[in-house]
Amino acid sequence: MFTARHRLELPSLPKLANPELEAELKGLIDQKTKPLHALGRLEALALQLGLILNTSKPQIIDPQIRVFAADHGLTAEGVSAYPKAVTQQMVLNFLAGGAAINVFARQHNIALKVVDAGVDGDFEAHPDLIALKVMRATRNSLQTAAMNADECIQAVVCGMGLVREAPGNLLIVGEMGIGNTSAASLLLSKLGSLSIDSCVGPGTGLEVNGIKHKTAILTQVLHKHRNLKNPLEVLAAMGGLEIAMMVGALLQAASQRRILLIDGFVASSALLVAEKLQPGVKDFAVFSHHSAEPGHSQLLKLLDATPLLDLQMCLGEGTGAVVAYPLLKSALGFLNEMASFSSAGISNKDAE
Amino acid sequence: MFTARHRLELPSLPKLANPELEAELKGLIDQKTKPLHALGRLEALALQLGLILNTSKPQIIDPQIRVFAADHGLTAEGVSAYPKAVTQQMVLNFLAGGAAINVFARQHNIALKVVDAGVDGDFEAHPDLIALKVMRATRNSLQTAAMNADECIQAVVCGMGLVREAPGNLLIVGEMGIGNTSAASLLLSKLGSLSIDSCVGPGTGLEVNGIKHKTAILTQVLHKHRNLKNPLEVLAAMGGLEIAMMVGALLQAASQRRILLIDGFVASSALLVAEKLQPGVKDFAVFSHHSAEPGHSQLLKLLDATPLLDLQMCLGEGTGAVVAYPLLKSALGFLNEMASFSSAGISNKDAE
Repeated sequence: MFTARHRLELPSLPKLANPELEAELKGLIDQKTKPLHALGRLEALALQLGLILNTSKPQIIDPQIRVFAADHGLTAEGVSAYPKAVTQQMVLNFLAGGAAINVFARQHNIALKVVDAGVDGDFEAHPDLIALKVMRATRNSLQTAAMNADECIQAVVCGMGLVREAPGNLLIVGEMGIGNTSAASLLLSKLGSLSIDSCVGPGTGLEVNGIKHKTAILTQVLHKHRNLKNPLEVLAAMGGLEIAMMVGALLQAASQRRILLIDGFVASSALLVAEKLQPGVKDFAVFSHHSAEPGHSQLLKLLDATPLLDLQMCLGEGTGAVVAYPLLKSALGFLNEMASFSSAGISNKDAE
Repeated sequence: MFTARHRLELPSLPKLANPELEAELKGLIDQKTKPLHALGRLEALALQLGLILNTSKPQIIDPQIRVFAADHGLTAEGVSAYPKAVTQQMVLNFLAGGAAINVFARQHNIALKVVDAGVDGDFEAHPDLIALKVMRATRNSLQTAAMNADECIQAVVCGMGLVREAPGNLLIVGEMGIGNTSAASLLLSKLGSLSIDSCVGPGTGLEVNGIKHKTAILTQVLHKHRNLKNPLEVLAAMGGLEIAMMVGALLQAASQRRILLIDGFVASSALLVAEKLQPGVKDFAVFSHHSAEPGHSQLLKLLDATPLLDLQMCLGEGTGAVVAYPLLKSALGFLNEMASFSSAGISNKDAE
């Protein structure tokens, strides 16, 4: 139960609107040696990144990935295609460098740390592991709140803290947690006032009957927590420890003018919670890809977002975000490095 | 006029179908530590690249960009928003490293050479310039064939020759030529039996009236050359020198099992001609992006292609292809570097 003593101090957001800088950036973009708007969405992206970083010469510095891992009590109800043990096994795979996110992070030279937010298992100390286990898995949200107020706030605050001290000006939050598409679907349905059917999908690979069962369970969970309204209470009741920690990470990162490069369904659900807590956070977000998980379409609509990629991916871990990352580098590359019509001595459209 | 002596010797295509290799690649992909199909189109891409390179451990080696530049006699009819002089100016911009394609090529460490296929202007020798000028611009296709048979074959053969000796196993052909969306629209309409209206667009930035005028001119050009059928004759009558050279480059590259990473509208029109000349070439192609130029949708439909990106770009030069290039590296990265369920000791879906 949330009481008066459960207060979460949110970092304030810097102002993004800056008409002078915006005009300067648009002027630079339009003077590049290319037809007007010929670089399409890369141009809008360059503008957005300039406004977030508050400069007409934006550069991505020391980008960071944090993959948050946690287990879910609701998996006891059979809502996932994979056994819960896979969360811990995949964390070991991340630490050994063998997962998809490792491969893509190496490809683009992005620093990767794994965060134990609440895995039901123990890990030896490892230089790439940040140990912030709040507890060993959430409780079963069909029976009680997944987290109590203290646990939920602790998770959010841990997320803020680990980003506060992290280097760089671009953050990707990824996640691993068997059962976490269920938590994301619950948050989306509740906070977006959407029917649960439009928010549920196969996750890691449920077949038709599995999805039916998952939907039935999630319907009961929503019913149990039907009286909650406050986004933090909703997060505590039906979310996950990795999602709560991502919420904190995103809030903190935006407050520091970092670029939030948003992955798929579960990461977007954390952004939705963050946006409910602190409206405007999403303006610091670049939406990397449209996940094949069906609920992501609803989530993107709620967030008024059009992602850069649509490659039918649905792996999580931050993989979609990292695969889209070079597009941000391309956007900044053309802004910073291309010649202008005047510098290159090229006739412009009206010059004939 | 094409006569019996005008014969173009086409390099033969290697066989792509290889059920054994295909099964091996699928097996590798499905055993990676991720839910089945969770990497979406990257998985199909990894399979295709493996089949093209004919190995279960495909690697991209020394990728190459060739930007083909040429002028178009049809620009005398006012079909472009920019003056013809821009072709030469942009070649100088490429050689100085200031164009969008230079920026993206540097970002991804891809070798870039510019090919003078028929620019109406002279260049000093430059290490990044391949001088293969067939003539100074095509003729005005409203009045006569843009190229005669000898010129057209010479251009195609030059394209083959320059690729034959080029290093690497991945080729991007880009182009620069004021007026070349007109040539591409003509080729698409004629070879695809499509109404010209569905093939014409703003190119580098025509407004509504400009597009109307362009459409009217192209309608007349099509009428003038209405009796042609053979794709090589169509190319000669209404194409461009840079397009003809790209046709040769693509044919040669496919014959050597290179990956053809296809850019936007004009590059795709060269692939369409190549496919008409040598059916099966397109199976060696990866379609990088959906151009904002309206005719590209028609072209992609004809080629049965779904590009990787849709970022509303329409710059040409090979830019869309280079921006999509890291996705190919991601596809090969996961195939070659990710752990398998057994190697990582992770429970698979059915293992509970």
